[in-house]
Formats: sequence, structure tokens, C-alpha cells
Amino acid sequence: MSAVSKLEEYRQRIRTELDGVVDFWLKYSHDTKHGGFFTCIGKDGKVYDELKYVWLQGRQVWMYCRLYRTFERFRKPEILEAAKAGGAFLQRFARVPSSGTEASWKCAFSLTRDGKAVKIQRTIFSECFYLLALDELSRVTGDKDMQMEAEQMMDQLIHWVRVDPSGLGRPQLPGDKPTNSMAVPMMLLCLVQQLTDGRGQEVAQKYRETGTWCVKQILQHVQRGGTAILESVSLEGEELPGCQGRLQNPGHALEAGWFLLQFSADHDDEELQQTAISKFIELPYQNGWDKEHGGLFYFLDADGYCPTQLEWNMKLWWPHCEALVAFLMAYSKTQNSNLLETFSQVYNYTFSHFPDTVNGEWFGYLTQEGKVALDFKGGPFKGFFHVPRCLYMCEWILDKLLGDKD
Amino acid sequence: MSAVSKLEEYRQRIRTELDGVVDFWLKYSHDTKHGGFFTCIGKDGKVYDELKYVWLQGRQVWMYCRLYRTFERFRKPEILEAAKAGGAFLQRFARVPSSGTEASWKCAFSLTRDGKAVKIQRTIFSECFYLLALDELSRVTGDKDMQMEAEQMMDQLIHWVRVDPSGLGRPQLPGDKPTNSMAVPMMLLCLVQQLTDGRGQEVAQKYRETGTWCVKQILQHVQRGGTAILESVSLEGEELPGCQGRLQNPGHALEAGWFLLQFSADHDDEELQQTAISKFIELPYQNGWDKEHGGLFYFLDADGYCPTQLEWNMKLWWPHCEALVAFLMAYSKTQNSNLLETFSQVYNYTFSHFPDTVNGEWFGYLTQEGKVALDFKGGPFKGFFHVPRCLYMCEWILDKLLGDKD
Repeated sequence: MSAVSKLEEYRQRIRTELDGVVDFWLKYSHDTKHGGFFTCIGKDGKVYDELKYVWLQGRQVWMYCRLYRTFERFRKPEILEAAKAGGAFLQRFARVPSSGTEASWKCAFSLTRDGKAVKIQRTIFSECFYLLALDELSRVTGDKDMQMEAEQMMDQLIHWVRVDPSGLGRPQLPGDKPTNSMAVPMMLLCLVQQLTDGRGQEVAQKYRETGTWCVKQILQHVQRGGTAILESVSLEGEELPGCQGRLQNPGHALEAGWFLLQFSADHDDEELQQTAISKFIELPYQNGWDKEHGGLFYFLDADGYCPTQLEWNMKLWWPHCEALVAFLMAYSKTQNSNLLETFSQVYNYTFSHFPDTVNGEWFGYLTQEGKVALDFKGGPFKGFFHVPRCLYMCEWILDKLLGDKD
Repeated sequence: MSAVSKLEEYRQRIRTELDGVVDFWLKYSHDTKHGGFFTCIGKDGKVYDELKYVWLQGRQVWMYCRLYRTFERFRKPEILEAAKAGGAFLQRFARVPSSGTEASWKCAFSLTRDGKAVKIQRTIFSECFYLLALDELSRVTGDKDMQMEAEQMMDQLIHWVRVDPSGLGRPQLPGDKPTNSMAVPMMLLCLVQQLTDGRGQEVAQKYRETGTWCVKQILQHVQRGGTAILESVSLEGEELPGCQGRLQNPGHALEAGWFLLQFSADHDDEELQQTAISKFIELPYQNGWDKEHGGLFYFLDADGYCPTQLEWNMKLWWPHCEALVAFLMAYSKTQNSNLLETFSQVYNYTFSHFPDTVNGEWFGYLTQEGKVALDFKGGPFKGFFHVPRCLYMCEWILDKLLGDKD
């Protein structure tokens, strides 16, 4: 088969898959009474828990709006209305009074169906997905106040991360030194790209230094002479002692890889593109792919000890989603056929293991051997996000590769 | 084989196993520099992380002292000295200043090797295992101040649980109603038994009402017309909505079962003995045993949905330890041969899957199919506790059954 017809075949399957996944969430996840989305959805679409997880509320609003903006076939009132109702739910209920010393509020981690706060995490991520939702929604609706609220949230996040974390409410303990955890600069970099994309010089200028800082922080995770991406390092960029220091999360590194690829393209930075591909895409794949059973491990220890996370050897949907985006994007930037070949390998594993051909959508959690271990389609950490983001991005890249977009 | 020779065979294996497990921890876990114990110990005994988990420090002190008191062959200076060094480490480092509104301290969850606090949980369990260590150590050394400190800790715990939890530092959130989580009354009941056992009327009287309250709280977890033990219920003893309400933890119910059996024996309560056996021992075994692959599931949903815990179908060492104690104790109280038969089934699975015949000690985490999934002997939640507690209790019960003890 020619390379082009192979790409065409991928695109066809990916497009069909995306349509099916969107239909699934449109059909089963909307709470028409209170707004927002059910995310605990069983294998056949049944809601098995009504808690509303703020990460997943924000992500679903973002994803609906992004699809609405990107592809003609998703420009449907049904999608826009659900996104607006989700945004309204978040604005009404997600912020709650906080006992932190400095800020007077935090975003909750989970809410009851009708919006009462259940749990608050002492991290920045609920706020990040709230911001993502509001900014993307403002791009669809043209709501300037909403865009402003997203920017104000960003300023608060930068303050928590770079100036003073005390508002997050974590106690300062003498044995708990601050670390550079890869999730934080990755998330902030994603938000910088979200807020600035296509918005002109003023806002780009405002967040330029933060973007550069994020990239520098992410690059500190290249460790051991360039042979490993470690999930947490010291603030000085050194390896931390013990399990925490040796922890690798291949899917997360791959996600960072395509974030860096996007940044390198926006900034015409060829050296960064090289690093993104060799260190954050090829390396985590080499270290993280299970040679015996296929698929990406969830966690690994850089010295080969067994990780202490019980799920370390499971195959989760999202690292495979990140790998698909990363390898296809890397191929599109370089035309290096090795990258396309690895994309194919990940594609074959992913499409033969995760989609549920009976009830639609994807399973999220497989055993090391590739058997479905948890059969729900949505849960506290799996919502309408990684699967459709991967599929929409792959379709978009394939459109460009096949010459259907500029 | 006669019933007696079967029991003799069990005892022989259990005794040998206990000796091997004690040797393993004596050899690999002692920190002779700072006191206390390493608990992150790899399959061959190598320390792979130096963090000290307070639950496991307290449990190891308790277990060493209990073995020292119970069996002549463990009355060794080496064991006593290690227990004392562990107790001293805890007394010196475990309590840390707290930001809670009422108490001015909390016990840390984890410490650096040299005792600096790394993490504090907003629950009571670090304090519980601290208390367990101090009380048992005071029984060996005769240190009355230490016994007093354990009692003061108990009074603080009862205050947090029954009067005012604000000192634990959890924010009060409108969607997070207080619940009756089985771990709490189980833990307090265990502490009441610890503090009062053999200590005379005054202290027994002091904690009598708390003991009765704990039993009542535990019995609230019998739900659905007596067909399920649910891990969390409302304060009024009703089933909670969603996943939280439907969650079953068979190993935990079995542990509660033998706690209740002990209580029923101490209080000559035959009705409670019946309930303990039928509802907390036989029922969780029926619901929790994997008919296909053997072994006890970690978590189950009472309506048959897939639990959201990624490890739900794994076979962990400790539920099997609890099941062995529960069924053997139930058999010893009743002479009902069905209970001995189930003990045999659990025994066969346990001894053919968990012990490591190459490097000693037990693996802790198997896949649903019974393959070793995490190969370390100790980790953040597996220390010198469930395995030796199970083995020492089974040996003790078998001694009585075989007429070697009164």
C-alpha cells in the first residue's frame, strides 16, 4: 500500500472513531437539569455515579468548543448549548471559599450533581481546566468578560507557581522540599498556548516570558546524560533521591513532547524541535513500550526497580493517545519515515485494544496483557478529553499531510 | 489425613513461615544510624527508598513487642532493642506542629530517613499506629509514662472522631457530609482492645462505652437486608449514593469480623459472635472470592459495576491474611467444620501464591490471575505487620486447638 493510501486509511478510521465518541458523550453525559456533565458512565452508557469532577467538566467544555471551532461537521447547536451550560455550571459552582492564607478561593476538585463542593485538592489543576474551558468558550461566543476571567485565573496560577504557593493550602514541611514536577510547567505551557493562540501581540507579549520559563523547566527533566525523562526533579534540575526521583511516566513525557513541538514550531526553534523528538518522543517510547505484550507502561523506575504504584504495568488509554499525537506531529514536521512507522505500531495496538466495538467509545484501563481491567467509558479521571483530543488532532494533521488543509 | 494432623501440618508451615519473615525484617529493615525501620525493601532485601512511613514504623514496633511477649523463641535482645529504637524514633520525630485549628500537633504520615516530616494526612491513622507502638512497647519495658502517652493519644483520637474533627485539618465542605467509614470504628475498637487487655477494671471502665460505640458503628455497615457489608455508610446508618456507597472491601470486612469475634468473646456475647461469623466472615468471603482464578478481590461494587479503583481486581496479601485469621478464629470458637474448610481453601491459595520461596518473605500484589505484579517485599503500605500478625495469631490459635496452650 502506498504511504498516501495508508494515511488516508488512518484518517478514515480516525474520523469515524471521532464521530462515534462525540455521539456517545452527546447521548449519555449531559445533565439537562443542573448543567454540566456526568462523567461516571458505564460500558453501555449508564451513569453509575453523579459526582461532577471539575477537571472533566472543564475539559469537556474545552473539547466541545474546540471541535465546534475546528470542524464544520461539529458546528451544531447541540454541542454549543452543552458547552455553554457546562461553562455556566463551572462559573456558578466551581470556585469555593478556601482556607488558604492568601487567596480567598480555590476551585473544587469534585462537586455534587447540583454543585456543592465535595473535595478540594491543594494543587493547581482544577483551576487550569476551568481556565481552559472559559478561554475556549469565549472564542466561540465572543464573550470578552469570560476571556478576561481566564486571564485573571492565569495570573493567579502564575503567582501560585512562581511567587508564593501558600494560597494552595499545603503545609510547609521541613522534609518536603519544593520540586519541579513535570505536570506543572507542562500545564502552564498548555495554558500559555491556549490564551495566546491567534490573539495578537499584546497578550503574546504578556505571557512570552512564562512560556520560555515553562520550556526551560520541562527540559530540566532530561536526566542521566539524556537517557531518561524523570517525572520530578529538584528546583536546581538535579535528580531527587528514592522512588520519587526515579519515576518515569512515558505517556506524560510523550505529551510534553508534542507540547514542545508546537512551541518549537511557533518560535521557529529547530534545536528545540530536535530535543522534543529525540528526548521526549523517541526516548519514552523506547523506555516505555512493553516489548512482550505491546502497549506503553503507565509508570517505570529508571533503575529497574518495581514502581510502588499498583497500576504501574497497566496499559491506559491516555498515554497511547499522547503517543499517537506525538509521533504523527513529529512525522508531519520532519517527514522522517521512522516516526511514521512508530505511529503505525502505536496505532495498531491502540485501535485493536481500546475501542469498544459493541457499545462505542473506548475502554480506558487494560491489564499488562491487554485485557480490559475496568470496563467503564468514563470515571473520575476519564472523561471527554484525551480520546477526542487525540482523534481531532490526528485528523487535523492528516488533513494537512494529505493536502486538504493549508 | 485426620483433622488433627491437618492442623499440625498447618501449624508447622505457619511457624516456619513466621520464622523466615521475622529473619527477613531483622536482616534488612533496621536503620542502625537513625533508628526506626526502612520499609521500602526490594524482592532480594535491598532498600530502594529511605522514606519512613509512620504507619509502618508504629506497626513494626508493635509487632516486635507482641512477638517478644508471646513466644519464647522471639524473646531476643535484638528484637527488643530494635523495637525500642523504633519507639524512640517515633517519639522524637513523628509528632509535628499542625495548622489544624484546635490541636497544635499531628503525626506525620511520612518522614525522611533522619526524621523530617514529608507529608501529613488529614486522618487519624498515623496517630493510631503511634499509639499501638507505644502501648505495646510499654508492656514489654514497663514504662508507665509511655503507657500514659498512649492513653492521652487515645483521648485525643476519641475527641477527633466523636466530638470535633476540626483538629485534623480537613476543610468543611457543603457537599462532603460526614460519613461512617468502617476503618474508623475498626481502628478505635482495635485500640480499645490494645489499651485494656489484661490491664484491670479502671482502664477497662474508662473505654467501655467507646468499645460498645465502635461495635455499633461497625454493625451499621451490614446493609441491603444483610446481604452486603458496605465500606462507608451515612451517620444514620443508611447507604450512601454512588460509588462510595456501593463500595465493598472484602478483606477489610473480614478483619472487622475477627475484631468483633474477639470482642464477643471478651463480653460473652453470643449474638454478636453469630453476626461476626455470618455477616463479616462468611458473607465477604462469598461475595469477594474470585470463583474463576481464586483469591479475594480488593474492591467490589455491590451492584456489580466496575469499581473505579484501578487495583480493584488485584489479589493483595493482606485480605488473605485477614481471612486466615478470621476463619481459623471462627472455627476455634465454634468447631464448625465448614469454617475450617474455608480456612483450608484460603490457606492453599495464600501459601501457593504469596510466599517467595527464593528470597524469603511474601509478595504483596498479584494480578487477578495470580501472577506477581509488584515484586517488592516492603513498600509504602506493606511493612512488618499483616503477614507476621496473621502467622503469629494462627500459630497461637492452632496451639490452643492442639491443646498446647490453655
